[in-house]
Amino acid sequence: MKIVITGGAGFLGRKLSEALLARGTLAGLEGRGEPVTQITCIDQLEPERPLEGVGYVRGDICDADVLEQAIGDDTASVFHLAAVVSGQAEADFDLGMRVNLDATRALLERCRKLPRPPRFIFASSVAAFGAAPRIVDDDTPVRPLNSYGVAKVIGEYLVGEYARRGWIDGRSFRLPTIVIRPGAPNRAASSFASSILREPLQGRKAICPVAGDLAIWIQSPRTVIANLIAGHELPPEAWEEGLRVLNLPGLTVTVSQMVAGLERAGGDTGLISWEADAAIEAIVGAWPRGMKTARADQLGFRSDRDIDAIIRVFQEDESQPGGGQK
Amino acid sequence: MKIVITGGAGFLGRKLSEALLARGTLAGLEGRGEPVTQITCIDQLEPERPLEGVGYVRGDICDADVLEQAIGDDTASVFHLAAVVSGQAEADFDLGMRVNLDATRALLERCRKLPRPPRFIFASSVAAFGAAPRIVDDDTPVRPLNSYGVAKVIGEYLVGEYARRGWIDGRSFRLPTIVIRPGAPNRAASSFASSILREPLQGRKAICPVAGDLAIWIQSPRTVIANLIAGHELPPEAWEEGLRVLNLPGLTVTVSQMVAGLERAGGDTGLISWEADAAIEAIVGAWPRGMKTARADQLGFRSDRDIDAIIRVFQEDESQPGGGQK
Repeated sequence: MKIVITGGAGFLGRKLSEALLARGTLAGLEGRGEPVTQITCIDQLEPERPLEGVGYVRGDICDADVLEQAIGDDTASVFHLAAVVSGQAEADFDLGMRVNLDATRALLERCRKLPRPPRFIFASSVAAFGAAPRIVDDDTPVRPLNSYGVAKVIGEYLVGEYARRGWIDGRSFRLPTIVIRPGAPNRAASSFASSILREPLQGRKAICPVAGDLAIWIQSPRTVIANLIAGHELPPEAWEEGLRVLNLPGLTVTVSQMVAGLERAGGDTGLISWEADAAIEAIVGAWPRGMKTARADQLGFRSDRDIDAIIRVFQEDESQPGGGQK
Repeated sequence: MKIVITGGAGFLGRKLSEALLARGTLAGLEGRGEPVTQITCIDQLEPERPLEGVGYVRGDICDADVLEQAIGDDTASVFHLAAVVSGQAEADFDLGMRVNLDATRALLERCRKLPRPPRFIFASSVAAFGAAPRIVDDDTPVRPLNSYGVAKVIGEYLVGEYARRGWIDGRSFRLPTIVIRPGAPNRAASSFASSILREPLQGRKAICPVAGDLAIWIQSPRTVIANLIAGHELPPEAWEEGLRVLNLPGLTVTVSQMVAGLERAGGDTGLISWEADAAIEAIVGAWPRGMKTARADQLGFRSDRDIDAIIRVFQEDESQPGGGQK
């Protein structure tokens, strides 16, 4: 079976590709396990280190021609990870809408034209929540307070509608903040949550733009990838009518607890400089500090045990040769 | 102050224009009552009977040039009523998305470019709800089960986002099914709810495509117009952060109760033929049978008393010369 990953040159796309290659099978159009025969990553960027056995299409996912070229009629599954991240979408509304909304729609239109409805996995986000209780549950209405979250919520409704029409077998998953992301800091408002651990662990300085008592909802890349694949494997009957979106499990930690974990792992906490940034506080501070994910727990989605386990995962995954460059 | 009404040639646009002309003032950009100096209706159709004192621009509201021409820099308020109705949007997905989503976005973009952020009133709908409890409240998550409802929900999120950005003072109102609409039956799935009263009251036959025990959430055109204007007049402070959408009050009636009301009003119930239509049952049957509108009630929005009052409003409003042709 053939699989397409948007944003596939990014770190999450790479980890997903690796996991799919290692796994070797995935539920196909009939729902039975089938061999993964082709993985195509669409991205505007070249991958830093292309994976063997993975195809890369470089192009703009808003461009229908690129999508038509990359997504052949025999595509069985699409993982839609591409996005303009929260901080950047907040700074550049038009770019955010173009990539986070228009490209999602173009991608859904391409899938609609496929001869057989593919599974469609949409990476939504905890950023869908904003003006909400500090702890949300499965039925909390989403009221985003940033452009990234707004586009994600709209994407969820589009995925649900295309699924209702029978054009895709669509599922949206609201991911926690992913900690620890490898690579360099990016323009996600939550980028610091990885930086304050990753950089000191690698002997470099980091800036923490929020207060120590800020609590965030996090998950390791390894668990997020496992959950995205588990979400792909869910049978269509697992979903209630009109509900194709799921809050994924995570872990509530304060920034201070993350720093304590860094210390236990032997990192130099003195490398962190605390420099408040109101724009970042405003975005991340509006996200929920936790979720009660009863529905996902019941369906068998996993979570990390604690911040120490999350740091250990990073040390294991990124200590491989070249791992730090992912 | 200058006011723009999209879909202004339709029956609701006409009633809104009449109400604004009669009222003479509206809260302006400063929030103070100001004289209504100009009303411009944008519609793809010519009005059947243009109102004196109202300007009409005929054109496609997806067309940025039309919007630029019709919405001058001095526009203080926009009432966005234009839509492809539920039954038609379900039958023609692309047309529905073009008008119900793309045009809303084009209109918001036009408003964003105005030198001063206008008030923006978006007519959303009870159709936003689908897979929901049969009675919804102010915080019930919206899970639409029809394309019209999906586009309305997406429109609500866009209105909220443009308001958060400070580009408009936006408010979305989820209207009940409007009963009794004057004029001819249309392609709204709920069109029958007006037809089964209006047509017999005017001595004509009507078809009822649903069972007598179906309960729907309705409101008279007169009360809906009063509530849209009340919604315009709400000060910005009336809204909670991240929440620019409100369920409007209505009345739960079963189809049988409507027919009983028709009989009390002297209508010939024998003119109704009962012919089940699965497509209409599927759309309307998924809408909530009622709402607890605590937030709107507290803010002073009104409701009709009962079905007899709703029929009386129709008889009063539409008995004026030419009224039946609206």
